[in-house]
Order: sequence, then structure tokens, then C-alpha cells
Amino acid sequence: MRDVFHHELDQLAERLQAMTGLVGVAMGSATRALLEADLRLAESVIADDAQVDEAQRDLDERAVQILARQSPVATDLRVVVASLRMSSSLERMGDLARHVAALARLRYPRHAIPDSLRGTFAEMGDIGQRIAVKAGQVIATRDLELAAELERDDDALDALHRRTFQVLSSVEWAEAADTTADVALASRYFERFGDHAISVARRVNFLVTGEYAPGTHSPGPELEPIG
Amino acid sequence: MRDVFHHELDQLAERLQAMTGLVGVAMGSATRALLEADLRLAESVIADDAQVDEAQRDLDERAVQILARQSPVATDLRVVVASLRMSSSLERMGDLARHVAALARLRYPRHAIPDSLRGTFAEMGDIGQRIAVKAGQVIATRDLELAAELERDDDALDALHRRTFQVLSSVEWAEAADTTADVALASRYFERFGDHAISVARRVNFLVTGEYAPGTHSPGPELEPIG
Repeated sequence: MRDVFHHELDQLAERLQAMTGLVGVAMGSATRALLEADLRLAESVIADDAQVDEAQRDLDERAVQILARQSPVATDLRVVVASLRMSSSLERMGDLARHVAALARLRYPRHAIPDSLRGTFAEMGDIGQRIAVKAGQVIATRDLELAAELERDDDALDALHRRTFQVLSSVEWAEAADTTADVALASRYFERFGDHAISVARRVNFLVTGEYAPGTHSPGPELEPIG
Repeated sequence: MRDVFHHELDQLAERLQAMTGLVGVAMGSATRALLEADLRLAESVIADDAQVDEAQRDLDERAVQILARQSPVATDLRVVVASLRMSSSLERMGDLARHVAALARLRYPRHAIPDSLRGTFAEMGDIGQRIAVKAGQVIATRDLELAAELERDDDALDALHRRTFQVLSSVEWAEAADTTADVALASRYFERFGDHAISVARRVNFLVTGEYAPGTHSPGPELEPIG
């Protein structure tokens, strides 16, 4: 019985890791759709988000079944509850990739992001993908070194987010208001994507160490939404 | 034993309802701070968000204790799991009120919201408060009529969000780019606040009917982040 149970817990972790793969690919494609004004790619990201939602429903259903049949306690119980939380974060990451793609679709055939910020957003997309992959590795390996690396990646994402708002506020900025709004929202989507990945990593950290990392409930530099 | 257990479940619901009260007051105060450029009020909203975070941690800890000690199954298990989900949504609503307050603080002594949109944001704040109160009533009463009313309130909030973006995109709009960005983000915070309240109401609906309302995992008009 114990073996079946731990096999089921392992399956939860595998499915969470699969979700990190889906949302990482989604954010990579969404970024490309945004920067290339690629309508078909944007639409495929939007359509594929249903897979992430379905993965979450499936994972949550399995977690509830484990709670019902196995009545886990102590650490095992916390692993199941943490899985429910992590699947929520990953589902939100999928939504955020979809929002980025929706911006690309909304402005097509125009580019939502002006040339002056293409490099910044390309970098945010790269970091976003990397963060998703690492979150999956942290779930699979419980490697706290890697979790710490993820926090540094997220710091880099936050720095790009702040830089974007500095550009918006500079005297050189001469874009139309709807472009300004698009840039503000898109930058926020990437920043939130990183925050949710951090939240996943911190839950793994909690499972390993029994300690909440600081700010577990509100990861990221949210106190000042724009810098 | 059963009585103790159901008393504990009732306490979870009471605590969730108390959280709706906290976040409703927070959003009301944050809106006033935003519209009046009231720094002290903004700072008190930001400081008080710690109470919401603490309420979530406490509620989650109780839910885990119930799972560990009582090993609930079937409907009772789903109530506990739904409580974990609802506390997440409510914690996010607290964060969003804090983000609105942080915008007020960031721009102080200037007003973050230009005069032309004061009425729109005042209305979003009123609806946000009303939605939080109703979400609490839905948790306490499981009244599905009220849950449906909440969906209509959220539709009104979404319409105001879309109107804000129409104003931003109009030829009359002549505000500085940082104001445009503030308005875009603030409007999004209100819209998301409503989405999370809807998510709470839909979970109650699921507990009562056993059916997921459409879009339970992604409430709100998120497919097109701006209209």
C-alpha cells in the first residue's frame, strides 16, 4: 500500500513537471508571436492553453483522490496540498502566456511592442522560458541550489520590468497611448509569470526544509507594482 | 466526533467570510487613496495587507489540520479543498487592493488617475467592494441566486475596464505615458479583483451543484486582456 501511495505522489510530481514544460513552451511561443506579430502562432498559444487547464483539472482530481483514499498525514499530506497550490500557479502561468499571445492577436497586423523595446521583451521571454524549465527541475529534483538560481533569474526579470517602465516614463518615449498600455500590461505579464514560478520553487523549498522562504505568499517585487 | 468536524468546517467558512470583509474594506480604502491621492490611507492599506496574508496562512493551516485529523471524504473533502482554493483567491484580492494603494503612493503628491477617469474608477471601486461583500454572503449562505448576481456585477466591472481602454485609445487622450501606464495597470487590478471574487463564487456553486460553472479555472474576460 505504501508503495502504491508513493508511486501516486511521484506521478503528481511528474505531472507538475509536465505542466512546467507546457507553460514554458507557451511563453516562448507567445513571446515570438508578440515580437513577430505572428497571428497564427498567437492563436495556437491561445488554443493550447486549454491543455494546461485540463492538466490542472486532472492533477487536482488525482490529488483529491489521493486525499480520499490514502488519508495521508504529516509530510505526505503537505506534499499533496503543495501540489494543489503548485498546479494553481502553473495554470496562472499558462494564462499569462495566453494574455501575451492575446495582445499580439489584438494588435495584428501591427506590432504591439515598438522596436525600441523588442530586445527587452525578447530577453524577458528567454528568462521566462528558462524559469519554467528550472521550476520543473526543482519539482523533479528538489534541488535547493537550483531554486536559489531561479530566484536570481526572477530578479533579472524584475529588473527588465523596471527598465521597461523607465523607458515608458522617459522624455524620448513618443508612442501612442494604446502602445504604452500594451507595453505596461505585457511587461507585467512577464513579471507575474516569474513570480508564479518562484512561488512553485518556494513551495518545494518548504517541503524540503519545513520553512517558508520569506514572502512565500506574495513572491516578487509586488509592493511597488511599477518602478 | 462528527459534530466537532462540522463545527470545524463551519469555522473555515466563517474565516473565509472574514477574509472577504478584509479585502472589501482594503479595496474601498485603496480606491479612495487612489482618487484622493491620500498617502496615509495608501500606506495603511499596504500595511494591513499583512493581516490578509496572516488570515490565509491561519486558514490553510486549519484546513491541513482537518485533513490530517479527520481524513474527510466525498463532499466534506471537497469543502476543505475548496477552502484552500478560496483562501488563495482572497489573498490575491488583498494583493490587488495593495497594488492599487501602491500606485497612489508611487505618484503622491500627484493624482495617479486623471480627472477624466475619476468617475470610472470610483465606480470600479464601488463594484469591487460590493463584489467582496457578496462573495462573503455566497460563502455563508451558498445562495446561488446571489452567486449569479455577482457574475452580473463582474460584467459591469469588465465593461468599465473596457471603457477605460477605449478612453486611453481615443484621440482626446493626451495624458503622459506614465499616467497611461498607471491607468492601464489600475484598471487591470480592479478587473482581476472581480475575477477572483467570481472564482470564489463558482467554487461555492461547484460545492452545491457538483458542476463546474463554465470557465471555473479562468474566470472573467481574460482572453482579450484589453478591449
